[in-house]
Amino acid sequence: MKQDKYIFTLEIAVRDYELDSEGIVNNAIYLHYLEHTRHAFVKQEGIPFGSLTRDGLIPVVRRMTIDYHTPLRSGDVMLSRLWIEREGARFIFYQDIFNKASGETIVNAVVTIVCMENGRINRGDDLAAHISKYLDKA
Amino acid sequence: MKQDKYIFTLEIAVRDYELDSEGIVNNAIYLHYLEHTRHAFVKQEGIPFGSLTRDGLIPVVRRMTIDYHTPLRSGDVMLSRLWIEREGARFIFYQDIFNKASGETIVNAVVTIVCMENGRINRGDDLAAHISKYLDKA
Amino acid sequence: MKQDKYIFTLEIAVRDYELDSEGIVNNAIYLHYLEHTRHAFVKQEGIPFGSLTRDGLIPVVRRMTIDYHTPLRSGDVMLSRLWIEREGARFIFYQDIFNKASGETIVNAVVTIVCMENGRINRGDDLAAHISKYLDKA
Amino acid sequence: MKQDKYIFTLEIAVRDYELDSEGIVNNAIYLHYLEHTRHAFVKQEGIPFGSLTRDGLIPVVRRMTIDYHTPLRSGDVMLSRLWIEREGARFIFYQDIFNKASGETIVNAVVTIVCMENGRINRGDDLAAHISKYLDKA
Repeated sequence: MKQDKYIFTLEIAVRDYELDSEGIVNNAIYLHYLEHTRHAFVKQEGIPFGSLTRDGLIPVVRRMTIDYHTPLRSGDVMLSRLWIEREGARFIFYQDIFNKASGETIVNAVVTIVCMENGRINRGDDLAAHISKYLDKA
Repeated sequence: MKQDKYIFTLEIAVRDYELDSEGIVNNAIYLHYLEHTRHAFVKQEGIPFGSLTRDGLIPVVRRMTIDYHTPLRSGDVMLSRLWIEREGARFIFYQDIFNKASGETIVNAVVTIVCMENGRINRGDDLAAHISKYLDKA
Repeated sequence: MKQDKYIFTLEIAVRDYELDSEGIVNNAIYLHYLEHTRHAFVKQEGIPFGSLTRDGLIPVVRRMTIDYHTPLRSGDVMLSRLWIEREGARFIFYQDIFNKASGETIVNAVVTIVCMENGRINRGDDLAAHISKYLDKA
Repeated sequence: MKQDKYIFTLEIAVRDYELDSEGIVNNAIYLHYLEHTRHAFVKQEGIPFGSLTRDGLIPVVRRMTIDYHTPLRSGDVMLSRLWIEREGARFIFYQDIFNKASGETIVNAVVTIVCMENGRINRGDDLAAHISKYLDKA
């Protein structure tokens, strides 16, 4: 049971324009939810991505695996949760989305992020310093 | 009959993810089509927006009026056409979208664009110089 | 001063993926915000659009005019407000978006909606019955 | 070298509104490209998804893995290619996107699709019958 590993939860309501012609949230929209969750996490924690950027570090998504379990529909509210692990230069965001009302799992995603510096992958020590308390936890 | 005023036509195919839950292209997507058409026009004509930007000029949409006549659906191909008029600092893009197969009018749009320079509206002479042949025509 | 005419206000936070390459919210996204606001209004008021649909009535956007004043940026929160008037078969949604923090006007929009029934414009009496208290107010 | 396995190629041009605030195509947009490619493949091949749907079969994405190599930018044109394998009830779409001009690999994606029937996973024999020539090839 990994639920206790979550370090951040964001509540997001489905907007009707995110539905596709089958009346369910389009597959691509979940990547928006996941990105929005990561940015909200960063913002809440005061991690200075701006300063990272000034130092020439640009975090980029390198790989994403996403399992779709149950689709979200009009009116649904989700809980989007995450925890993080570091594997050398790679930061692994484990991101799960649940239906707030039913508790059902909507998607499970694993998002690999690296920091680019002058077009090359940075060792990641700078970013790690900013989120060390979460890496210890994981 | 204003059809002979058109100075640019772009063919665009509907992509299924642009449909909403009613199976028709979502209202907001037409603004994407219209912007895409303006950018394609600019690119084809070699108007150096990049150089405008270097000079500190930023074209922005100030006002848009759009009439929706017939919705586009899965599989449809559109012809997106435009012509331009200048009214002082304002450049008016008249943009119409037609169903390529049936000739039906899909939307009529009037898009007002101004150039910003240091946060203020520029007189527009620089942009006008780049597109003078089209302004003469209109 | 029309502020007292507003019958509904929705708070919406900008999501970073809604920004375009200039770092401001893309023009088309405001139509998403406006639609999302109308749907939230309908949902809150319990107006049974589902029952309208079962009766063969489909509300569609016929015309939209939008004035862009100040762009929204990353981290901004907006207040999206509306009021309604009826002009025969047409329902006019006056929708304004403000920056919550600064009070600045972001966009002013006027959205004309009609109800379609079997491919023709319905007189609108059914929809009017559902929102009569708001029409009286306007 | 798997290039000879490709059974379908679609050329897609980047549209500027698909860029995010860093000036590159947003991660989520690639899922749109991939879906658009699958639908275009289906349409070209005359596979009657409509008839599948009438029979109560709904193809859904169950899992997606996507590796991001090089971002697309304004003006880029991509070649989006795919081939298919079947593993029991699951249809695996191998989808790769290349920069048309440079040949660079943009993304590699593996998309697992199953057919749902009355809320349960269908064995897939009906869909397999429609695309058997491609499954033989794979």
